[in-house]
Order: sequence, then structure tokens, then C-alpha cells
Amino acid sequence: MKPVKVGLLGLGTVGTGVVRIVEGHQADLFGQAGSPISIEKIAVKNMAKLRNVAIDAGKLTEDPWDVINDPEIDVIVEVMGGIDQTKAYILEAIARGKHVVTANKDLMALHGPEILAAARENRCDVLYEASVAGGIPIIRTLIEGFSSDRITKIMGIVNGTTNYILTKMSREGASYHDVLKEAQELGYAEADPTSDVEGLDAARKMTILATLGFRANVALEDVSVKGISSVGKDDIAFGKRLGYEIKLLGIAESQDDFISVSVQPTLVKNSHPIAAVNGVFNAVYVYGEAVGETMFYGPGAGELPTATSVVADLVTVVKNLKLGVNGMQAASVFKEKKLKTDAQISYKNFLRLHVEDRAGVLAKITQVFAEYEVSLESVIQQPSTEHSEAEIIVITHNASKAAMNGVLQAFESLDVIRNVKSVYRVEG
Amino acid sequence: MKPVKVGLLGLGTVGTGVVRIVEGHQADLFGQAGSPISIEKIAVKNMAKLRNVAIDAGKLTEDPWDVINDPEIDVIVEVMGGIDQTKAYILEAIARGKHVVTANKDLMALHGPEILAAARENRCDVLYEASVAGGIPIIRTLIEGFSSDRITKIMGIVNGTTNYILTKMSREGASYHDVLKEAQELGYAEADPTSDVEGLDAARKMTILATLGFRANVALEDVSVKGISSVGKDDIAFGKRLGYEIKLLGIAESQDDFISVSVQPTLVKNSHPIAAVNGVFNAVYVYGEAVGETMFYGPGAGELPTATSVVADLVTVVKNLKLGVNGMQAASVFKEKKLKTDAQISYKNFLRLHVEDRAGVLAKITQVFAEYEVSLESVIQQPSTEHSEAEIIVITHNASKAAMNGVLQAFESLDVIRNVKSVYRVEG
Repeated sequence: MKPVKVGLLGLGTVGTGVVRIVEGHQADLFGQAGSPISIEKIAVKNMAKLRNVAIDAGKLTEDPWDVINDPEIDVIVEVMGGIDQTKAYILEAIARGKHVVTANKDLMALHGPEILAAARENRCDVLYEASVAGGIPIIRTLIEGFSSDRITKIMGIVNGTTNYILTKMSREGASYHDVLKEAQELGYAEADPTSDVEGLDAARKMTILATLGFRANVALEDVSVKGISSVGKDDIAFGKRLGYEIKLLGIAESQDDFISVSVQPTLVKNSHPIAAVNGVFNAVYVYGEAVGETMFYGPGAGELPTATSVVADLVTVVKNLKLGVNGMQAASVFKEKKLKTDAQISYKNFLRLHVEDRAGVLAKITQVFAEYEVSLESVIQQPSTEHSEAEIIVITHNASKAAMNGVLQAFESLDVIRNVKSVYRVEG
Repeated sequence: MKPVKVGLLGLGTVGTGVVRIVEGHQADLFGQAGSPISIEKIAVKNMAKLRNVAIDAGKLTEDPWDVINDPEIDVIVEVMGGIDQTKAYILEAIARGKHVVTANKDLMALHGPEILAAARENRCDVLYEASVAGGIPIIRTLIEGFSSDRITKIMGIVNGTTNYILTKMSREGASYHDVLKEAQELGYAEADPTSDVEGLDAARKMTILATLGFRANVALEDVSVKGISSVGKDDIAFGKRLGYEIKLLGIAESQDDFISVSVQPTLVKNSHPIAAVNGVFNAVYVYGEAVGETMFYGPGAGELPTATSVVADLVTVVKNLKLGVNGMQAASVFKEKKLKTDAQISYKNFLRLHVEDRAGVLAKITQVFAEYEVSLESVIQQPSTEHSEAEIIVITHNASKAAMNGVLQAFESLDVIRNVKSVYRVEG
């Protein structure tokens, strides 16, 4: 039987995992896909580099176009990363009738609609299970598993680096900077950690999840983003005292087809299943009108977990090839995007304020909340370590983002407030 | 556009949910499936019964054959339950070229291979996502999400009734019988709870999961089953003291394609994600060689969660109809079944023994373990409440089932042992 011929773009961590699984699981993959799968060509940055996996040197090239332009190649597996140049490779591959499997969240978050439209036009599959939450098959779940339901909320721990940092801070009472340094030494965080710790990586993944969950094209710029670099030991300690863990959550919500998507440090009630997701693990919590609460948990990165998702997509492409139905799946996005305004977005808030330690301060502060009709669930006041300063912790009831913006603006001109230390969302 | 015509067998809890979702989500389902879906005929037990959902009385019949024999019906949705008669309905529907969506775990566990073979022969889809773990799309996940991986372990909390009972016992220190009675009053347990509490319901679901996970036809009689009716307050209390929760776990394992499947009360280390699955919720933990640890969590039963899975399958059937590929998916079972012997099955054990309270007893007992080469992880001895009796708690290291059978047989003729109170598996 003629094998399905695969061209690989990239042979880093994930690419190596793809080679390992395709070579190591031949019999199983044949059973699943009904056809042998063969990696024929691999584009690498540097042909001279030593590899962790045995590869016929004749298959390597330093020019991705060698792979794209090869008429024998049926499927391109893109695990090289990058955006503009990589998009050009993928669009050309599609134009040549090749199917594409990609792990590239950046590309799919920014150019997903364009790439998927080109794929449909050319009857090509473009599959990207590995782009979000590594080994967790969450994209299939949103497209197929919940095709019958109206999803109203998706909450994701979709960045392992920040979850590792926050878990360590919570367990050891350590500071953000100490833990980040350790994570960098262990290889869990990059030398320049900005994309992870400032929430951009998570925002890209939430763009993809929100698009699939709500069946409308959400764009990266629709996502409001705040990272974890400002989360202090005290925030975590106060959170614990009140029964919460702090997690970097991506939260996408839809009510009556009006959507909001955000990424921010969030206090999660510790009875909520997502509060127990620790270390580099990822999890996506999905709430559907009919199904109710579900959660999908697993490794969010790593060579073999991510490669599992890439190769599962490859199996789907091969199955579709045998049936002659590539690129013919119904589009999973069929709704117009409507975004919520700040007046429509509503959640609970945690605030930590440093204030002057004298009579009447709490009255002035609660007066501001009252003016903006934000009601309070709990208030704790205690002396601060600083001289003649007190610390006030407030948890609000659900309040609109517009009202909270008003409160925070009013606080700026309130003389008794020295410092708004933290403002975080609260869930569960 | 001509709608896809559905015939419903059964209008109980799940059937009502299916009607609600199909009627209530018309626009969304059209977006997903690319075709309208219409429920044309419904077979019910009693036409005179009052319903919780508005239904055109002209669609109802008391004779399922009216639905099966209707040449206009494209898809049969079977949510009536039952085995032999229901199998006859489904096989006849397939013979007539109708596709089938079923929530019937009993039928699929007992006759799945025969029904699926008939479906392939007749180019019909038979989908059964709702048969295991209600609203969790675990069947799709095993077939497609992990098609690239070799799954080596599946652990499931797949019976909500027993998980509710064990959760209550753990939280409140209540006895099995008190909690069962309460569960029956609340409708979480049936008047005759045997199938749930003795593990048969879970065994049927594990038969389906093991078959899909290991790609080999596992039969119900391959599953070793022990229910929760013998679990005592003391077992739970001792478990807690040692850092474990007791759960009714279905455990399917495969090493080098040798399979074992069991259902039994299991002490799960409370750091394991499945230990935190409480109440009527279900969860399936899947370990794959490449992907590592994953877990899928959600509602295991109920009108709308189960109907979500049924209707998602219906959407898949409709998509396949539009592509003309029903019944043409590669078989997901392609391996020969090889079962482990008792000498190959190995795990940790928790034992609680009531023994005579005199010198040399522990030596005699540990001597038996040594004879069968079972090594011990921890031993606790303490005075019992009974006169001149002591209680001994043992947790073994991994030991083969054959060796443990030898130990338990030797204990029967050991005069110092008054009673082997409990023997449970230990995980995590």
C-alpha cells in the first residue's frame, strides 16, 4: 500500500516527538489510519546539528521550500513556529493541494480565519489540535463533542509556565521573582519570559478556544490581557485566607451571543475543580447550557504530549484522504461576532488597598463603591506593617467592568488611599 | 432544504432532553450540521402519560416497529434501554439502512461488536457517546483524540450513584446504609440499587472504554467486579488517616497488549486528580505512553448532559450524510484481545484485619506475606474496640493478584486472624 507522505517543517522539541511517534507507532498508526504514514522530508535550521532521534540525513533540508514544493508530499506538518514567513509556507502548501497539521498557536490566533478559508477553497484539511493545551484534545471536543450545546463559558489554564510559577508561589510562599528565576533555570520559563508571564501566550490560545466555543471569529485584539508579574506573596496569602487560589485564567464568556474574552490573574475558590490544577499542567473548564460543568486536564506542553496531538491530527487527515473528504467538514464558525461592552461584562473583584490608618477611611471608601452601585461581599481591615497605614481587602459582588473602572478612577483622587496594591477577578 | 428525519425510541429522561435540545437549538444545530434536523416519530410506553415537553401527539406511537419500519426515517435515536428486544430493533434499523445513535451501555457492552459489524456491512453509523460518562465526550477522545498514542491505563469514576454515596460517607462519616437510603429518597439511587452499588453498571462502561482504549474487543465477562456495599466507615476513616479517598474505580490496564479490566473500591492517594471528583460527577483518567496523564471530568448522567452527547452524535451522523461517508470510518478495534493472568496483574493492596491481641501475632502475619513474596509499604497496629482484639492495617507494595490470593487463602487457616475485614486496591 502506498504510504501517505509527510513533510515536516521544523525538528525542534515537538518535531522530534512527531518523528518518534510516527516511527515508533507504525503498526498502531496503520491500524488507526488504514494506511502507512511516512515522513519523507524535514526542513531544519541547521543540518549539521546533532539530533536526539535517528534520521536519514538524506531527508533533511535547510530550505522549507524544498518540502513545500515537493509534489510527492501529501501533508505538511508545521512545527517550526513563526508567523509571517510560516504563513507564506502554509498558504503555498494549501495552494498546491497539500493538507496541513500545525501546532502554531501564534499563527492560528492571528491568521486562522484566512488560512482556514484558503483550506476550504482548496479542499484541504488544516488541523491544529496541538496549538492549544498540548496533549489535551480540546479542539476536537469543542468542535465535535459539544456540537449540540451552547457553550456559555470557557475557563482555561493554558500556560504551563505561569501555572508553575503561581503553584510554587502558593505552596512555598516564595516571591514571583525568585520562582521565575528558578523556572528559567529548570527550563520551564524562557530567558525572555514576557510572552508567558504577561499573558500573551494564553491570550492567543483563548482566541482560538473562544472562536471554536462560540462559533464566531474572535480576534486577538478582542482579548483583554493582564499578566502575573504584579502578583505578590501577600495577594496569594490573602487569597488563601479567604479560600482562594490565584491562577492565570483565560476566561471567555457568551450570553445571548455577546462575547467577552480576557486573560488575568484570578482568585479561584478552592472548591472549583480548576483551582486544583497545579504545576505545568493545563486544564480547560467548559460550561455548556445543556451539559453543565466539564473539565479537560492534561499536559500543556512537552515533546511527546504535543506530538500526540499533532499525530492524531495526521491520522484524521489520512482517514479523510481514504474517504476523499478532506477540507469538506462543515465550517465550525457560523455566527457573527458581537462583543460585550464594559457595561455588559460583570464579575466579582478582589481589591487590596493601602490606606491611611485613621477614623473615617473605611466610610470614604465604601461610599465610593456605593456611588458606582458596586456592592460588597466581604471586607477585611487590618493594620499594615507600614507606619500609620492600614490594609483593606475587599471582595465585591458581581459588578460591571464599567462600574469598577469608575471606582478605580475615583480612588485615584481619594486622599485616604495611598496605593491600590492589587485588583483581581474572582471566580467560583 | 430537506431535513434529516429522526425516529426516537423512548421518551424518558434522556429522550425528553433530546427533544428539548433538537427543538430548542434548531439554528445552532443547522449551523453545525449544515442541515435541519426533525424528530418525526417517537415510540413511547404509554401514549396517555403527561410529558414535561410539548410534543405533537400525532408523532407518538406505542409500537417501536412503527418507527423502525418507517421508510422516511433516516436516523434512529435509541434511548429506551433494554437489551434483547432493543437489539432486535437496532439490527432491523441497520438492515433497513438507518443510522443509529444510542445511549445504551448495557446493549453496547454486551453486543457492541455484533452491532458495529452489522453497521459497517450496511454502511450505517452506530454512535454511542452517551453510553459512558453522560456528558463527557470520552468515546470521541479515545477514538480520535488519542488515535496516535498507546493508552496503557484508563481509570474511571463512571457511576454517579456510588460516587455520591462514597463522597457522602467520606464527608460526613456516615454509614453506607444511611447514605444509600438518603440517595434513594433523593432519586440518586434506584429502589433496587444492585446494578449500581455492586459495580455492574461501571463494569459495562469499562468494557466499552477498554475496548476503545486498547483497540481490542473486551467482553463484560473479562471484567473482575466488586461493589461498594462492603465499604465501612472504618475503611474510609483509615484511608483518610493514610492520605487516601475511597472511590469505586474502573481500572483498565494494558502492558505489551496484555489487558486487565476491573471495577472495585480503591484507595486513591488524595494528590491524584481523580481523588477530588466528588458527588454525582464522573471522570475518566487516561494515561498514554506519549501524552502522559490526562483527565476528563463532567456530569455522568441527567437529562440534558446525556442528551448533549446523543445530539452531538446526531450532528456527526448528519455531517456524514452530507459527505456520503456514513459507516465508512476505519474500525477503531484492530487488535486481538490478550488477557493478563492473575500472575501478571499487579497493584498495591490495603488490608484491614481483626486479630487476637497477643504476642507474636504480627510476626505470624508478616511471615505469610513474606512466604508469598509480598512486601509491605506500611503497617499500623492498634487495639480494637472489641475485647482482646487488635486491628492491623497493611498497605502492600505492588503485588501480583495471584500472590495476594495466596496470602488471603493462607490467612483463612491462620488461627490468630479472626476476620479479614477489608481488602482494597490502592492507587496513586
